[in-house]
Amino acid sequence: MGFVEKVRLLDYWKVQDSALQSEFPRSRLVLMVDRRLLVTKDAPEVRMVEHSYGDLKQLLGEYGLQFDLSNSCLLDALEAETDMIPLFGTSIEAADPPEDSPISKKEVLRQLGNSLGGSFTDIRMAMLTMKEERQRNLLAKFQSLTKWAATYRRCPKCAAALKMRTSKSGAECVTCQRVYYPTFSPVSITLITDPTNEHALLVRHRGSAGGVFTAVAGFAHTGESMTECARREIAEEVGIEVDSIRSLDMSQPWPMPDSSLMIAHVAVANMDQKISVCPDELETAQWFSRHQVSQALETTLSDPFLKNLPRTLDDRQTLHYIPPAGAIAHQMIRQWVDGKINCHNSRM
Amino acid sequence: MGFVEKVRLLDYWKVQDSALQSEFPRSRLVLMVDRRLLVTKDAPEVRMVEHSYGDLKQLLGEYGLQFDLSNSCLLDALEAETDMIPLFGTSIEAADPPEDSPISKKEVLRQLGNSLGGSFTDIRMAMLTMKEERQRNLLAKFQSLTKWAATYRRCPKCAAALKMRTSKSGAECVTCQRVYYPTFSPVSITLITDPTNEHALLVRHRGSAGGVFTAVAGFAHTGESMTECARREIAEEVGIEVDSIRSLDMSQPWPMPDSSLMIAHVAVANMDQKISVCPDELETAQWFSRHQVSQALETTLSDPFLKNLPRTLDDRQTLHYIPPAGAIAHQMIRQWVDGKINCHNSRM
Repeated sequence: MGFVEKVRLLDYWKVQDSALQSEFPRSRLVLMVDRRLLVTKDAPEVRMVEHSYGDLKQLLGEYGLQFDLSNSCLLDALEAETDMIPLFGTSIEAADPPEDSPISKKEVLRQLGNSLGGSFTDIRMAMLTMKEERQRNLLAKFQSLTKWAATYRRCPKCAAALKMRTSKSGAECVTCQRVYYPTFSPVSITLITDPTNEHALLVRHRGSAGGVFTAVAGFAHTGESMTECARREIAEEVGIEVDSIRSLDMSQPWPMPDSSLMIAHVAVANMDQKISVCPDELETAQWFSRHQVSQALETTLSDPFLKNLPRTLDDRQTLHYIPPAGAIAHQMIRQWVDGKINCHNSRM
Repeated sequence: MGFVEKVRLLDYWKVQDSALQSEFPRSRLVLMVDRRLLVTKDAPEVRMVEHSYGDLKQLLGEYGLQFDLSNSCLLDALEAETDMIPLFGTSIEAADPPEDSPISKKEVLRQLGNSLGGSFTDIRMAMLTMKEERQRNLLAKFQSLTKWAATYRRCPKCAAALKMRTSKSGAECVTCQRVYYPTFSPVSITLITDPTNEHALLVRHRGSAGGVFTAVAGFAHTGESMTECARREIAEEVGIEVDSIRSLDMSQPWPMPDSSLMIAHVAVANMDQKISVCPDELETAQWFSRHQVSQALETTLSDPFLKNLPRTLDDRQTLHYIPPAGAIAHQMIRQWVDGKINCHNSRM
């Protein structure tokens, strides 16, 4: 089946509840338990573990766990032998073991992970470390739709019940018939360089891991173009004005803390401006040389799970790491280190 | 006051209700009555008419009309003599005249427009014909925030009341404390060319004005990058696959029918593919030569309010116009006609 047919089939499944329901027993599924994702264990590459509907029913059943369409969302259409079948994401909660249980919940989940051929991991860490863009985007969709479907239960206009589509791609008010769609917001993420293109301004977010610096990012406001958003966010967060700005033709869905679509930009600013960070958001913002950023890139590539983060307070404010390879910020910074992002292409 | 200070002041006003309330009597305002926008009349250029708070109170009062903060949203901060003052958009309803009134409501609104130094116009037509990007983006914000604030009255999670910020930039549930923000979605809008860059594929939307063709556009789905969105929308709407696609560094907030941020792309497709339009969305999609598109651009520029649209059914399916100058599609098509968009720059 070609790309056009696949796209149109997904569009059909999204809105035709009974058609999608009848496909459920033929489907394949990826899984979250207690908001942790089932991924491959000890494999060379972090990936989501897929199961057939029948296998997952049986394996979860052995632990007294169940799933159905109510806690599942439609992620994709997969090639089967002669036609296509749905890929669902299903998100369930595991009950706490009885108080007098000899084994802890953590141990139960470890065993469950083993039985399912993987282990459960933090969603953010999975986003940051999964190498394949398709896997990351499916996880972003899984997490965003799951959270949205859990939140949109009542009509924001009239407070009547919302009838959720089986796919979780929309919900209709049973009283006023308004339709709501999963919401996510555009975010500008901007690499700021000096006019010589030999320095980059990177920031450390309040509450982020010690020693990790990244590009300036923030949600677009209603009524802004993307470049206006990037320009405003830079003024808000680091207190400087940029001379030019352009988009980089890179974007990435990102599901945490709120659902967003990160859109990459590069901007040029003079280094003699006084930096004043927004203290609610940032701990520090500093200019670094290409050599300094290159070293942090090497450290990050040689320690992709950031196991050796600095512990002392002083050292946490020093550039040691950039975000891991799954983040668009990593790809932007890496391209800049490699000389592939050039401010001289920039236009206002 | 510099750009950084202005951005930070707006950020403060957005969340500090009492500070913004105390600025209201010093503010300037733009106006909608019955969802029609007050714009300059007979001026060389369509612009929103601004009034001071005091003038607007008095002029509306003469017609028995009132406004207050509840039907106003914060749009911008303007330079005043020594500091900055807010620009609000206020949206009110005019009561119908009594049944035995000698003059119609339409005539009342015409007179009201005159008193206010302008006339009331359709929001879509204002978006399409206002020449200044700042004016269009402020109108997009005005319409989007007004509609959002009228819809988000109850918490979608728990159905308790939402407490709306004075600025209309967010609302918090009085019971569960969740915060909701005005929603708008990224949309890809894509100019499709053939590999020689001498032909463009344009579409006519179901229900759009006769003879007007434009680029393919559609809402991004959760979990897609922008180029994935563009590729899928092209498959969904016209049934073809593109070979390459890239973003154009142009974007535009657009408030109708739903709030969106249009992000421009260019894609290359082979002309020998069979076009199959999605009948819910499109009436037709056709390849046109650069000369044909250039003629439609000229027609549009010489008749910017599209007063001479074709009336007969046959002629409505022929390329006569592209969208007016206020639409991002116009700017994309114009750049392509001028040879400034070149498929040879494209990358996958």
